[in-house]
Amino acid sequence: MAKRLVVALGGNAILEAGQRGTAEEQLANVHRTCSGIADMIAQGYEVVITHGNGPQVGNILIQNEEGSRQVPAMPLDVCGAQSQGQIGYMIQRTLANELRRLGLDREVATVVTQVVVDPADPAFSNPTKPVGPFYPAPRAQELMREKGWRMREIDHRGWRRVVPSPQPLFIQERASILRLVETGVVVVASGGGGIPVCRDGSGALVGVEAVIDKDLAGERLAQDVGAHLFLILTDVDGVYLDWGRPGQRRLDRVSPSQAREYLRQGCFPPGSMGPKVEAAVRFVEAGGERAVVAALSEALLALEGRAGTQVAAA
Amino acid sequence: MAKRLVVALGGNAILEAGQRGTAEEQLANVHRTCSGIADMIAQGYEVVITHGNGPQVGNILIQNEEGSRQVPAMPLDVCGAQSQGQIGYMIQRTLANELRRLGLDREVATVVTQVVVDPADPAFSNPTKPVGPFYPAPRAQELMREKGWRMREIDHRGWRRVVPSPQPLFIQERASILRLVETGVVVVASGGGGIPVCRDGSGALVGVEAVIDKDLAGERLAQDVGAHLFLILTDVDGVYLDWGRPGQRRLDRVSPSQAREYLRQGCFPPGSMGPKVEAAVRFVEAGGERAVVAALSEALLALEGRAGTQVAAA
Repeated sequence: MAKRLVVALGGNAILEAGQRGTAEEQLANVHRTCSGIADMIAQGYEVVITHGNGPQVGNILIQNEEGSRQVPAMPLDVCGAQSQGQIGYMIQRTLANELRRLGLDREVATVVTQVVVDPADPAFSNPTKPVGPFYPAPRAQELMREKGWRMREIDHRGWRRVVPSPQPLFIQERASILRLVETGVVVVASGGGGIPVCRDGSGALVGVEAVIDKDLAGERLAQDVGAHLFLILTDVDGVYLDWGRPGQRRLDRVSPSQAREYLRQGCFPPGSMGPKVEAAVRFVEAGGERAVVAALSEALLALEGRAGTQVAAA
Repeated sequence: MAKRLVVALGGNAILEAGQRGTAEEQLANVHRTCSGIADMIAQGYEVVITHGNGPQVGNILIQNEEGSRQVPAMPLDVCGAQSQGQIGYMIQRTLANELRRLGLDREVATVVTQVVVDPADPAFSNPTKPVGPFYPAPRAQELMREKGWRMREIDHRGWRRVVPSPQPLFIQERASILRLVETGVVVVASGGGGIPVCRDGSGALVGVEAVIDKDLAGERLAQDVGAHLFLILTDVDGVYLDWGRPGQRRLDRVSPSQAREYLRQGCFPPGSMGPKVEAAVRFVEAGGERAVVAALSEALLALEGRAGTQVAAA
């Protein structure tokens, strides 16, 4: 039986540090990424793709601010939905081309994905995730007053909006995604951690201005599609202890209980490697066979257990 | 057996003339629209949804221009993909709420959709579809030089980009869409006429800066999902002869051959009622049971044959 696999692509899979973010740059990166994913599919893996959207939604937020005299700015959930359309399109077109080049007849489709969060999540009383442009103080004052935004002065670069980063409860479109996966479609879903929504008093879904960690949402996706493997790709070649200090060392393989212990000791930075390790551990704790944190460039090696940090029962 | 139905929503289903386009306005309109669609589903119709994106992609293009000093502007195909994410999200969240309110347990999902066009389509040598903002002459000169855009001065309001409006050949993600429809998912697809793509010399799909008519693309969608009915909703209550002249009269029912004859005589304005009639006729000619052009507010009546213009074999 084919191994089913969720691949969570980090920002560098679509835009590299230092790039301005032209469509050409993004498509060139997506091409390299999809070439690697096509190789996995050629080897018989059933792949489901999720991805970050930081630089893309950041650019959309800048455009919303710059155009705000002429066009009403959209809230963050709508901007996230836009970025899912954009990145999903780039991946589905490019990956379909790569698969065709390899003689593989597989359809690729992006499902616009909402992720339900709990309105009582403690993250809502402590927004920590910076999004969008830096604003000068007077404009920041205006936005806090008019829109009720929470903002923070960051170093001396200006003011930036901060939003909550709640836990993903479940993926609203999980049944649709699973049906497509089961019929052999390569699905792109839950981009940017999903569009955050929660249920109001009447039970209706409403949009939430927040950012769900894409690896934690990817872990929900991996459970929902019954994945055997969960591959988190980023710009470093694994999980390190004492990162950035003399004696830093990469973990080749770690059990979920040992990784939990490292998490409890605060070994990994929050908002960076921390949620990746948390997501990997949750996946294995929930019955997943193996999770891997690895460099994008070593994705296939990592799948084979020969690169990255393998999280699996001892 | 349930009747399968493609509903093509016009711009007024999402944004009404004269509105600025805030998220609140759009969601209020989408709510009213989805309430009507939920009623159709409650009556047993299997509904597939497509929609226009004119005002939304227009606003995205303005934001791209206004933000262009800080953020590279995205090409039109990418902006169209963004608008699919945006509008798809609004519809799928709102319609799911309406269905839940009626006690109907149905999932709603948006599939990001590419529509393949022919690079030899004569439309490419005669771009006619205006998109995006009006530019002052110097900026228009710059954009024509730097980006190779075709632009036209429109009245005395300024310069506007014009792009080709090629014929839709087929929907790239048709198999995924059909699979979802067959398992009872209410699918939103081919928004804004789909993201236009064509095959290059090597057979790879590439993005095209063009706008496919959303009703003509909707007709392809209707064929692909094996729809019995194709309902084109707009802001007028049907197809008129001598529209805007004394003696204008609405067609209650017309055969495809009679409608073709009217088209040949140029009875309907191009870029407006023309493509709607063309789409309706194509659907019935290809074996569809009935196509209807009707006002959004009379959707259910129109489905029952009691409003709008019915296109069906005599």
